[in-house]
Amino acid sequence: MIDTPYLLFLGDAPDMLAAKVAIGIRDWRPEFAIGQYRMEGCKADLGLPDLTLAEAKARGVKTLVVGVANRGGVISQSWKKVLVAALEDGFDLASGLHNLLCDEPDLAAVAAATGRALHDVRVPSVDYPIANGVKRTGKRMLAIGTDCSVGKMYTALCMEREMRARGMKASFRATGQTGILITGGGVPLDAVVADFMAGAVECLTPDNDPDHWDLIEGQGSLFHVSYSGVTLALVHGGQPDALVICDEPTRAHMRGLPGYKLPTLEAVRDMGVALARVANPACVAVGCAINTQHMDEAVARDHLKAVEDRMGLPATDPFRFGAGVLVDALARV
Amino acid sequence: MIDTPYLLFLGDAPDMLAAKVAIGIRDWRPEFAIGQYRMEGCKADLGLPDLTLAEAKARGVKTLVVGVANRGGVISQSWKKVLVAALEDGFDLASGLHNLLCDEPDLAAVAAATGRALHDVRVPSVDYPIANGVKRTGKRMLAIGTDCSVGKMYTALCMEREMRARGMKASFRATGQTGILITGGGVPLDAVVADFMAGAVECLTPDNDPDHWDLIEGQGSLFHVSYSGVTLALVHGGQPDALVICDEPTRAHMRGLPGYKLPTLEAVRDMGVALARVANPACVAVGCAINTQHMDEAVARDHLKAVEDRMGLPATDPFRFGAGVLVDALARV
Repeated sequence: MIDTPYLLFLGDAPDMLAAKVAIGIRDWRPEFAIGQYRMEGCKADLGLPDLTLAEAKARGVKTLVVGVANRGGVISQSWKKVLVAALEDGFDLASGLHNLLCDEPDLAAVAAATGRALHDVRVPSVDYPIANGVKRTGKRMLAIGTDCSVGKMYTALCMEREMRARGMKASFRATGQTGILITGGGVPLDAVVADFMAGAVECLTPDNDPDHWDLIEGQGSLFHVSYSGVTLALVHGGQPDALVICDEPTRAHMRGLPGYKLPTLEAVRDMGVALARVANPACVAVGCAINTQHMDEAVARDHLKAVEDRMGLPATDPFRFGAGVLVDALARV
Repeated sequence: MIDTPYLLFLGDAPDMLAAKVAIGIRDWRPEFAIGQYRMEGCKADLGLPDLTLAEAKARGVKTLVVGVANRGGVISQSWKKVLVAALEDGFDLASGLHNLLCDEPDLAAVAAATGRALHDVRVPSVDYPIANGVKRTGKRMLAIGTDCSVGKMYTALCMEREMRARGMKASFRATGQTGILITGGGVPLDAVVADFMAGAVECLTPDNDPDHWDLIEGQGSLFHVSYSGVTLALVHGGQPDALVICDEPTRAHMRGLPGYKLPTLEAVRDMGVALARVANPACVAVGCAINTQHMDEAVARDHLKAVEDRMGLPATDPFRFGAGVLVDALARV
């Protein structure tokens, strides 16, 4: 686990898009997002207090999170000055960059000398076991998608927020780098060695109270030929009681695969439920989460109504219109 | 690729079972198995010439293959003497042991000094790409199973032997450690990082002649919750035109999962074909390969007849009764 709260390092981000990870943390864990650290030329602004390292320290910050994509895949010397100063001031560092903090000799040396931690959330930090398939207590929801990047993480986070607001027991379980930085823990599933994927998911979603829900962030799609194996490890390791089917209806083809059409919601439901029942015979599909960001509101509401009629399941854009109907459906499982 | 031919190192194997990898090489690549090297106390005997290193050298051996499981997970000092001598005499070493040759400082030092290679086939030796899903030329068969260890590797190897005997173009494609040592190349799929599994399978089965068949060794099962993600990466990365469904009918439960019953052949066929058609809409199930080693011959033949009637597909135990009917079926695809 990464110590919280965070100071969000934005570096010299050229635009808001480069600060996607920091935005995710601000949106979903505002209580962790104490402030932002911007360097000269930074074009991103989260609307959080701009803090020096000393001010962040005084407010209890434990970790400087690199919440920005770096340019050209290199951790620049101007960033390094700040990162080294942060380590020397007693902060841990956390990053989801492709270039690992621990591969930078100067950062590694300062971290070792100061006893601070470097959290590279793109690499698994523990050895996971082979999955044992033993039934666990508590309940689990898995977001499964027609494709990659259709809103599975946001769906699970929206549901967690709604469930907690209702006083239900719920934990978002991160399986990707952004989710891990948002919550401070999780499994970077796409970086786990094949034999241990399902075991890692079992570890992520252990025994819990009978009325507790793990809300598991999905990855890939059973119909995405590049990543489907990761998805199936989630379906079998997660032992979900409930599936929420996620879609982005304006997409022309599978992400990164121009020759591949998106599957229907029905196909995702049928394949997902059939495979999930190998590990949990009680699994059902409970609803649809539709990412309507590219539709105006009237079109979006019409689309959701059409999905509900077609599928016989509640449908919403949980980020735009709330996750209420999905949580209502979970409460009936 | 591992240079051939081989001298098969049996060490001080306590019994034949410990020499499983060496037996596989002898059975499937007799042309590579020039001789065996046995130490004092060795209880295994492959019926091959016992050769000294010098004799092996004279017969053109290029690689000493550790074809035996070691005791207690340690590469003993008595083994080391032979392995070091082999390196000094100009042989490469290859091993499928859990303990890696390259993690032994003395072996690594001698290999570096002599310029010889240490092949640890349990770890991937190359960086694989993300799968791109682009249709490849040539044809592919994938062995899929009800469970782990039901005979998928033997099925693919039996089919290769039969096809080559008929003058057909066929290549067994190894996806596990034993298969890699048998053929000298392949992908240790269970050790590949999740994101690259399907890409590794694409690399293993590249474009080929239109009438060439890759015979892909299966792994795990779509219904085995510990390893199903690996299996699905084979189904999607392999783009199979044909599936052969493998079963061991006397098994009481899924391997390592006491609470899980084996799926039916019908379930494996239906799920396998449905998922395979995402990557290759032309994929069909062509036959069943039944491992009848625990049945006497009359029972085995009755069982195969019953499977054929039930499934409407040819069924054989390819190792016991030949792979002819499976190859006939492939030839019709």
